[in-house]
Amino acid sequence: MVSAAGTNEKVGFNSWCPFLIFDSMQKLKELAQKIRKIGKDDPRRVLHSLKVGLALTLISIFYYVKPLFHGLGASTMWAVLTVVVVMEYTVGGTLSKGLNRAFATLLAGALGLGAHHLAALAGDKGEPILLDVFVFMLAAMATFSRFVPEIKARHDYGVTIFILTFSLVAVSSYRVEELIKLAYQRLSTVAIGVATCLCTSMFVFPVWAGEDLHMLVAANLDKLACFLQGMGMEYFGEKMESESLEGKSFLQSYKTVLNSKATEDSLANFARWEPGHGRFSFRHPCNQYLKIGAVTRQCACSIEALNAYISTLQQSHQTTTDLEFKQKVQAACAEMSMETGKALTELASSIREMKWSSTAGKHLAVATEAACRVKALVPADNSTLQEVLISATTTSLLTEVVRCTNPVIAAVEELSRLAEFKRPEHGRKAGAESPPHVVIDIKK
Amino acid sequence: MVSAAGTNEKVGFNSWCPFLIFDSMQKLKELAQKIRKIGKDDPRRVLHSLKVGLALTLISIFYYVKPLFHGLGASTMWAVLTVVVVMEYTVGGTLSKGLNRAFATLLAGALGLGAHHLAALAGDKGEPILLDVFVFMLAAMATFSRFVPEIKARHDYGVTIFILTFSLVAVSSYRVEELIKLAYQRLSTVAIGVATCLCTSMFVFPVWAGEDLHMLVAANLDKLACFLQGMGMEYFGEKMESESLEGKSFLQSYKTVLNSKATEDSLANFARWEPGHGRFSFRHPCNQYLKIGAVTRQCACSIEALNAYISTLQQSHQTTTDLEFKQKVQAACAEMSMETGKALTELASSIREMKWSSTAGKHLAVATEAACRVKALVPADNSTLQEVLISATTTSLLTEVVRCTNPVIAAVEELSRLAEFKRPEHGRKAGAESPPHVVIDIKK
Repeated sequence: MVSAAGTNEKVGFNSWCPFLIFDSMQKLKELAQKIRKIGKDDPRRVLHSLKVGLALTLISIFYYVKPLFHGLGASTMWAVLTVVVVMEYTVGGTLSKGLNRAFATLLAGALGLGAHHLAALAGDKGEPILLDVFVFMLAAMATFSRFVPEIKARHDYGVTIFILTFSLVAVSSYRVEELIKLAYQRLSTVAIGVATCLCTSMFVFPVWAGEDLHMLVAANLDKLACFLQGMGMEYFGEKMESESLEGKSFLQSYKTVLNSKATEDSLANFARWEPGHGRFSFRHPCNQYLKIGAVTRQCACSIEALNAYISTLQQSHQTTTDLEFKQKVQAACAEMSMETGKALTELASSIREMKWSSTAGKHLAVATEAACRVKALVPADNSTLQEVLISATTTSLLTEVVRCTNPVIAAVEELSRLAEFKRPEHGRKAGAESPPHVVIDIKK
Repeated sequence: MVSAAGTNEKVGFNSWCPFLIFDSMQKLKELAQKIRKIGKDDPRRVLHSLKVGLALTLISIFYYVKPLFHGLGASTMWAVLTVVVVMEYTVGGTLSKGLNRAFATLLAGALGLGAHHLAALAGDKGEPILLDVFVFMLAAMATFSRFVPEIKARHDYGVTIFILTFSLVAVSSYRVEELIKLAYQRLSTVAIGVATCLCTSMFVFPVWAGEDLHMLVAANLDKLACFLQGMGMEYFGEKMESESLEGKSFLQSYKTVLNSKATEDSLANFARWEPGHGRFSFRHPCNQYLKIGAVTRQCACSIEALNAYISTLQQSHQTTTDLEFKQKVQAACAEMSMETGKALTELASSIREMKWSSTAGKHLAVATEAACRVKALVPADNSTLQEVLISATTTSLLTEVVRCTNPVIAAVEELSRLAEFKRPEHGRKAGAESPPHVVIDIKK
């Protein structure tokens, strides 16, 4: 028994040890692959990392070189701090943070000095109390101002630095003798830090938020086009729905467009701070990109509805009786889908090359013509049939909403189990017999 | 002439001056109203502002009281800095930032000391060079790690503080004699700052991110329900589409749901840091809320499609010929819409009260029954008509996509004018005659 256990242990150890090494080697390998992929997806990320290192190395020279060090004293540290905090991925981000930091420091420093002189009038005992009152009031007011959407969007960081600097200057005014010198040192080190960041950010492989926004908007249009052209080819095309669409990549790629608002907003916000560069002038119309983004998302929403309807349709098998009618509709749908896709591709490349062409409008006109052709298949004087068709569409859309509610119920039901919601007594008994929610299956 | 001009000026000044005062009074009034509205919409904002003031006042006492001050020296300032930077609106936000800051400071401080001892081996001249190499390498690697999505989401701030502290300790190790003392002071002041923030944040009117997420998810369900019930009453209801829906508030309120992902993600991210409180245990299933959010948005998307279709339909006037058929469809649609709305309301209140009820499933079952009833209006053996109906729906959805592309073209065209895109020579001439893009109007 003992020997057996011993053997087991030995075997366990021998087989375990290489396994552990192998396992951690495997994990390291995966991590390395992941990191390589992040760098490969956008090589500017590697450059940005090196740029941060460069900016920090530049600023630390200030510290090592004696004459520079003695001028500014220990507050050179503020310059290092500024570089780490202000350096952002895009030029606009760095500019936004840097200018916010510099101006907030200047303003708050001046106000802090004023508060110190005012508080000094109150005598030795009154000074700290008065200073505290000032700090409390200014901090509370400034914090509240961050809830104003316009300030939140553009000056959130500036307000933080404002509170910070005011508190630092006001509070330390009670102990530090040479307050003016402290304020001057802080301001100049912050200025040095911001200048270093801006130079590194703008002149060493700059990443412009405006250009990223430009490319993102074009890429989103391309994703929608990709779906429509894929549909036009694979679903409405000559294969006639014979193959299942499952697993096709074009069915998924447009979904990221639906959630692109936050990225677009933040890029546009940074782009507003950027000076003119390359093909972009200083007053480049950032807001127009946001408008394009909004209508693109609306388009993505109607594509989502189409996709949902088609994927439900694919699950039910339809028998074709009137082949001619079906072929006509199918051909028109293929044309609508392909041409709209072409129009969107055209728009994307028009944005990318900053060259307007009216081809997009022409493609869309062809698509519209195809849509009218389908409508003409139903004789205009047969108003009963037309009414039936409209009712059918409305009902289908509403049915889609009902169907969409099903997963919502399932998800909330799962939450109710995970978070241990209360359940009514009689419901628990009933729950044992019937499924927790009604599974709905509407046959098309 | 002169006197006339003089009179004019006088009149100008007299009428201008009160106008200026009036104008700025008006603006001040508007600002005050805006600020009051922000505070009224969520009174916790006012409390949060006061809490920031309170935390700062508490920490400044450290500075004023002599015994405390002498223990930590001038680095008490780090405590003030920590409070300003770490204090967030929600408890989860403060915890996330505070813990990130504390652990990053600890780790980077230790590494910085190690780097100092290693660099000291290289002699007086080699030391700054070696320190710079360390700072460059660590800053570059840490910055790159911020591009890893998992680190970006949860430890972005920690990485910043890591770079910051390491640079500060490593760089200043060249000049500062008592490095250990500096590192200890920095760590303890950061800890004091974080502790102050956490106490104020958790014990004085706490705002829990988990609870906000909980309420947001429920509110979003309510918004969808509001649309469906509004539609069921006003459009499908007894009034029979007689009135225009324009300007109804329920047509707009659900639109914010479409863009709620960013807010939900950030709240869930903060909520993960929060300890148990009230009805929420420590391991409250945050991810499940994100899942509910995702399916809710999908539901909102299909509602958007329905809304778009109906609003186009309202613009074209349909004559009713088969009143009986229409009434049947309308009644079924009203039931589908109302019952789905009720199901969503039920789910929202079930989340809010943390009490599961199976009523939502029952409402949805009624809605599904109504959907089947409409389908039954078309005889199942009439497969030609069924095919026509399916084709009609697919075409309608595709037409909606084509229609949605129209504003995209218009928006890109506007961008091309604002950003002065190149235009082909012959296009410019043609442009003078024809409108810049083809306006598409598909009659329903």
